[in-house]
Amino acid sequence: MSGVLGRIESSADVRSLSLGELQALCDEARSALIDAVMATGGHLGPNLGFVEATVALHHVFDFPTDKLVFDVSHQCYTHKMLTGRKCAYTDPEHYDEYTGFTNPGESEYDLFRAGHTSQAVSLACGLAKARDLLKQRHNVIAVLGDGALSGGEAFEGLDNAVTVGTNLIVVFNDNQRSIAENSGGIYENLAELRQTKGACKNNFFRTLGLDYRYVEEGNDVEALVAAFEEIRDIDHPVVVHIHTKKGKGLGWAEKNPEAAHSIPRGFDPTGAATKPKELTYQQITRDYLRKKIAEDPSVIVVNAGAPSGVGLTPDFRDSCGDQFFDTGITEQHAVAFSAGLARGGAKPVFMVMATFAQRAFDQLVQELGLNRSPATVLVFGAGFYDIDATHAGTLDVVMTSNIPGITCLAPSTCEEYLDMLDWSVDQRERPVVIRVPEKVLHGEQGAFDRMRPTGWHMARKGSRIAILSLGSTVELARKTAELLQERDGIQATIIEALNYSSFDVRLLNTLPAEHDLAITLEAGILCGGFGEKVARFFGSSPMRILCYGGKKEFLDRVPTEEFFKIYHFTADDIVRDIENLGL
Amino acid sequence: MSGVLGRIESSADVRSLSLGELQALCDEARSALIDAVMATGGHLGPNLGFVEATVALHHVFDFPTDKLVFDVSHQCYTHKMLTGRKCAYTDPEHYDEYTGFTNPGESEYDLFRAGHTSQAVSLACGLAKARDLLKQRHNVIAVLGDGALSGGEAFEGLDNAVTVGTNLIVVFNDNQRSIAENSGGIYENLAELRQTKGACKNNFFRTLGLDYRYVEEGNDVEALVAAFEEIRDIDHPVVVHIHTKKGKGLGWAEKNPEAAHSIPRGFDPTGAATKPKELTYQQITRDYLRKKIAEDPSVIVVNAGAPSGVGLTPDFRDSCGDQFFDTGITEQHAVAFSAGLARGGAKPVFMVMATFAQRAFDQLVQELGLNRSPATVLVFGAGFYDIDATHAGTLDVVMTSNIPGITCLAPSTCEEYLDMLDWSVDQRERPVVIRVPEKVLHGEQGAFDRMRPTGWHMARKGSRIAILSLGSTVELARKTAELLQERDGIQATIIEALNYSSFDVRLLNTLPAEHDLAITLEAGILCGGFGEKVARFFGSSPMRILCYGGKKEFLDRVPTEEFFKIYHFTADDIVRDIENLGL
Repeated sequence: MSGVLGRIESSADVRSLSLGELQALCDEARSALIDAVMATGGHLGPNLGFVEATVALHHVFDFPTDKLVFDVSHQCYTHKMLTGRKCAYTDPEHYDEYTGFTNPGESEYDLFRAGHTSQAVSLACGLAKARDLLKQRHNVIAVLGDGALSGGEAFEGLDNAVTVGTNLIVVFNDNQRSIAENSGGIYENLAELRQTKGACKNNFFRTLGLDYRYVEEGNDVEALVAAFEEIRDIDHPVVVHIHTKKGKGLGWAEKNPEAAHSIPRGFDPTGAATKPKELTYQQITRDYLRKKIAEDPSVIVVNAGAPSGVGLTPDFRDSCGDQFFDTGITEQHAVAFSAGLARGGAKPVFMVMATFAQRAFDQLVQELGLNRSPATVLVFGAGFYDIDATHAGTLDVVMTSNIPGITCLAPSTCEEYLDMLDWSVDQRERPVVIRVPEKVLHGEQGAFDRMRPTGWHMARKGSRIAILSLGSTVELARKTAELLQERDGIQATIIEALNYSSFDVRLLNTLPAEHDLAITLEAGILCGGFGEKVARFFGSSPMRILCYGGKKEFLDRVPTEEFFKIYHFTADDIVRDIENLGL
Repeated sequence: MSGVLGRIESSADVRSLSLGELQALCDEARSALIDAVMATGGHLGPNLGFVEATVALHHVFDFPTDKLVFDVSHQCYTHKMLTGRKCAYTDPEHYDEYTGFTNPGESEYDLFRAGHTSQAVSLACGLAKARDLLKQRHNVIAVLGDGALSGGEAFEGLDNAVTVGTNLIVVFNDNQRSIAENSGGIYENLAELRQTKGACKNNFFRTLGLDYRYVEEGNDVEALVAAFEEIRDIDHPVVVHIHTKKGKGLGWAEKNPEAAHSIPRGFDPTGAATKPKELTYQQITRDYLRKKIAEDPSVIVVNAGAPSGVGLTPDFRDSCGDQFFDTGITEQHAVAFSAGLARGGAKPVFMVMATFAQRAFDQLVQELGLNRSPATVLVFGAGFYDIDATHAGTLDVVMTSNIPGITCLAPSTCEEYLDMLDWSVDQRERPVVIRVPEKVLHGEQGAFDRMRPTGWHMARKGSRIAILSLGSTVELARKTAELLQERDGIQATIIEALNYSSFDVRLLNTLPAEHDLAITLEAGILCGGFGEKVARFFGSSPMRILCYGGKKEFLDRVPTEEFFKIYHFTADDIVRDIENLGL
């Protein structure tokens, strides 16, 4: 490979480049990014906007002696190109070799695995303080951006940076966007700072006691190099506010910042190749909410700065008017806000990805559970997905089902889902979490009983073996039952546990008389989950229990079929396990 | 009872008072507060500082039509006096009738149960938005203070208040203190605002787009009434920054704001009556850390604005110099900061109360677990305590032990604790959570094996029944074993599960051969906890399991002995349960 990029083997090679070469490097990196990401999918817009800043950082600073921490870290692709991993962006044969996030397992230039937002300054405070304790001397740099400033942890970090008090450089990447539009009062201040080129008196960062610099041309490598050289080896915390363009250099991405934020593999921006998609729960939820919102002015959809995963399209958001509220990347606030809405008589529906909901555990406990606030939380992306470990959604059952006062529902079919959702939105007694499955299955109407919302559903009454499935695992339950019938002549009982925060005691108590074994199935980690509760319930009975689900581990981009095999999450494996038990 | 207070039956009675009567009411309320809190214990300083503001709020606003939300809510005592609950402060016979926090179960004037900090503005945003959706008209007021501004959720709420955009009044109670000193850059800005009487250009609140008023005399009821009247029915969000004195009106409390923040029952400020205390884990930890810090400059103690519960006395903090860091009320930041410290080569020890650690679940998952950051987290106040439900520490096992990558240790004796702590601080492989027991027990040295830190300890080898105890429940295990011997002639096996994040598989696998029953004991809720994991482990074996621990419920000021009875957490009950099983 020719050009400047062809000569860059590591960060040190960027340090010796001339300004002209740096510019060429930016152009080449951008071009590689476009080719690679359009093919593999990934965070297109954020990376295109951060090319020049990355090149400038690697030119000015001495990594890995100096320390660089990325917030969210999905804007690290150029950083990877400059630190020995360029093949993942320049050679189609290696396109999938590295993850889309920083990862210390890949490179000494990556300090943390990071996929959630707003934590970079806090991590950098720790690095800076450690450096001071150990009497070392180097720069610590945190990259903050892409909406992360709305998250409370970013505020906590910035507020603490001043207390740390020594060298700590925060590069604030202001591309005027979160995933969707930015929301929150602070974005007005950022606009004023941009308009005045950083000169206005009203300055959020300065109110926290931080030194502050502004770079209007955040996609001009020369301006960035000058700014970074000025603050290299600074003896106190400083924010360098750089004004960048999300999607920079790719017309379509510049014009469609939300769509270009993260694109799927093989994405076609013209839309021509878009094949008709299967029905999704995102679509089902939108259709339901559109109708409900029109009927009831007290229904309000809440989102915390991440609308795409939960299906809150720009069109849908617009159609909701006042009945949609994006709180920014603020899961803590969003849950407390929902509690306030519920207490005030509104009917909030908070839609959130399982992985991000982790930020709000305490608010789920205190504001929802303890206060019994009748809010509905729809958890998307829960279960086993082939995804980066930073975004795993396997801890939601642990997190929500063990909180007193919260009713957790797991529909297995879309009929159940719609019944549960409609019941939940209108009831005024309790907080409800609904674990939205990935795949839309159809089933009988009426399995979910509104008069007995915590009841389970006996889908088939058999004997000897009872299969208890949580949510989407009902398909596996059916297959397992079929195979048991076929191979061993056993007519197994199938129970859909529609609720995973409490037991249907009446139903469970009928089992030991006619069953020797109960099997539990759940798409999540077993530790702290559904199956263990069933195991405890039957602990003192002679009935045996086998629990199927995930191990307590971070799954990192493992194809679903592969870990299903490891976890014995197939009918074949389960039936073989049962036979091996020799009951 | 005479005086103005004697005539106040509800908030409406305060509205009609003259300024002179309001002043008298403040004096009477303060006097009652001092008498009551000195006798019963409670949050003395915060309440003394907020008497005038509470009286002024009830004079100006029309509660409960207008809505008042307290942050932390431990400063609500005067509010309770004015809303039908004054007997709890004026009549010793009723002193314990109401809780120390707002509680909708007590009064329609209380909107939420709240005991953690920084959530009031978020809740108020929800109330305000609900009001707007329902086309109602009333004022929504959030009281924020006592250090709560350092918490990221407060920032998220303030930032979102502007987006809500309509009437929302934030009374920011600036008493210049958190529980301990305030820390963080923002407190410099607050100082500047106080010095300039709110006139300086540099204004944190205004940078978020918020309207702003300043009241220098935050303990002058007349000034407060004037300020509140001015913004009553305002059509947009406004912050009223009031400068108050923590401990106001009680010389000792004014001079000792940290000690007076929250005092125990029967507290003697002279210290004369202080009886020699038993050795505590707080003391043991301080002694250990003092020595360790002197030996190793990379050891650093981290606290998130709540030093008292974990025993970080002012003396100790001072003695640590640079090796102590108070991050403010910022559990999220504190965990990420600890991860950064660990990555940078330092040895962080984050000391936190179980109930407050809930705020950092996502950071425990991402920054500690996923990144395998070698930080030590000491969790105090975990288990069953006779405490307000808002402060319950029964969810820590659920929260920490199900996270991949974190090693969770539960010492049962102080010998084990010190071994674990010393091992954890020095090791560089993994994040470690240590569940600090309440009561100091002594035991044999060497139960914890540094070479096999996830191993369990077989304290007594018996047969038929195996008792598996987690941490402090070892006493109950011993008593139960004794009683089994006595009553049934059974020599039970006792296993101390020193680790609750993984199993000692080798040891567990030896049990089914010689035991019919395993019993698990844990001081925490059973759901998602330790016992359920054991139940799953033995699910497919013929051995039966009985799990003892707490129900999934919020315990609200229930005496320990009482819920021990309900939970069968006594040797008597357990032995009877075993006998009833008829194995």
